[in-house]
Amino acid sequence: MAYGGPVTSRPLDPIGEAHRQWSARWPAHADQMAAVTSVMRAQQILLGRVEGVLKPHGLTFAAYEALRLLAFTRAGELPMGKMGERLMVHPASVTNVIGRLERRGLVTRRPSPGDRRIVLAEITPAGRELAETATEALHDAGFGLPDLTAEQAAAITGALRAVRVSAGELGP
Amino acid sequence: MAYGGPVTSRPLDPIGEAHRQWSARWPAHADQMAAVTSVMRAQQILLGRVEGVLKPHGLTFAAYEALRLLAFTRAGELPMGKMGERLMVHPASVTNVIGRLERRGLVTRRPSPGDRRIVLAEITPAGRELAETATEALHDAGFGLPDLTAEQAAAITGALRAVRVSAGELGP
Repeated sequence: MAYGGPVTSRPLDPIGEAHRQWSARWPAHADQMAAVTSVMRAQQILLGRVEGVLKPHGLTFAAYEALRLLAFTRAGELPMGKMGERLMVHPASVTNVIGRLERRGLVTRRPSPGDRRIVLAEITPAGRELAETATEALHDAGFGLPDLTAEQAAAITGALRAVRVSAGELGP
Repeated sequence: MAYGGPVTSRPLDPIGEAHRQWSARWPAHADQMAAVTSVMRAQQILLGRVEGVLKPHGLTFAAYEALRLLAFTRAGELPMGKMGERLMVHPASVTNVIGRLERRGLVTRRPSPGDRRIVLAEITPAGRELAETATEALHDAGFGLPDLTAEQAAAITGALRAVRVSAGELGP
């Protein structure tokens, strides 16, 4: 929840104002409300920035993550199911993203020689090249966080670890 | 970016592993990469939880925020444009959300008596009732963060403030 002060003035901090409203009525829940709203808002800001950087390269952030993951592997390939685990997304999303990359010649799919029920995604030379170019573009844009110090960025990762722990994504 | 260790093992912390990969190649950008990826992942976890709580009430999180904002105002109404500012969303999104709420009889729209170019959204008694019910449901679910202490929640809000400052949403 996020909103400002009097109707006639620009709010100084909409989430801070919502926190004050909550504290007056439901103090036990104000910090959680502010945290959730902050995550939603930060994601909106960062997704807009990062996808703005990637759009000229024809990539969404999800597509970039898939390409980057394949580029990091030694063989340049991974089973689709494994990709979903590593990227923490639903199998259907992996299929969708890899399908789009395949149509652009950035990835190819084939059955695993060892187990034909497993589909492997393999990055092509064009895919590797685009992964490097897009990574450079994201670095130039500071991943949407050009104004933050490394310490400020690390504080975000650290604070959000509790959310990921609560989802069973990593140990406490 | 987020991925685990060897293909055969479940990663302990996919974002931590991506951070190690980045640190080996592009150390100057590793903290930013991990922060952005953490925000994306936390948002995905929290949106799923919060919308899971609101779905039985027929609300998205965006619709809940709009309803809650109107319920907080003294007169139960606000100009649509002002709602967009306070909720930090695009005017088209406000129109969309309010339209859905109106069709359910939770909100009504009318031209402002003072300036007919301005459209006011007003919450109905049924809208107020649903705002209270949905708020209770979110409180019962700890806003998707039931396992976090107030301090952990406040740390998230604090760490993400730098992102919101960089977007001009509040002063430094």
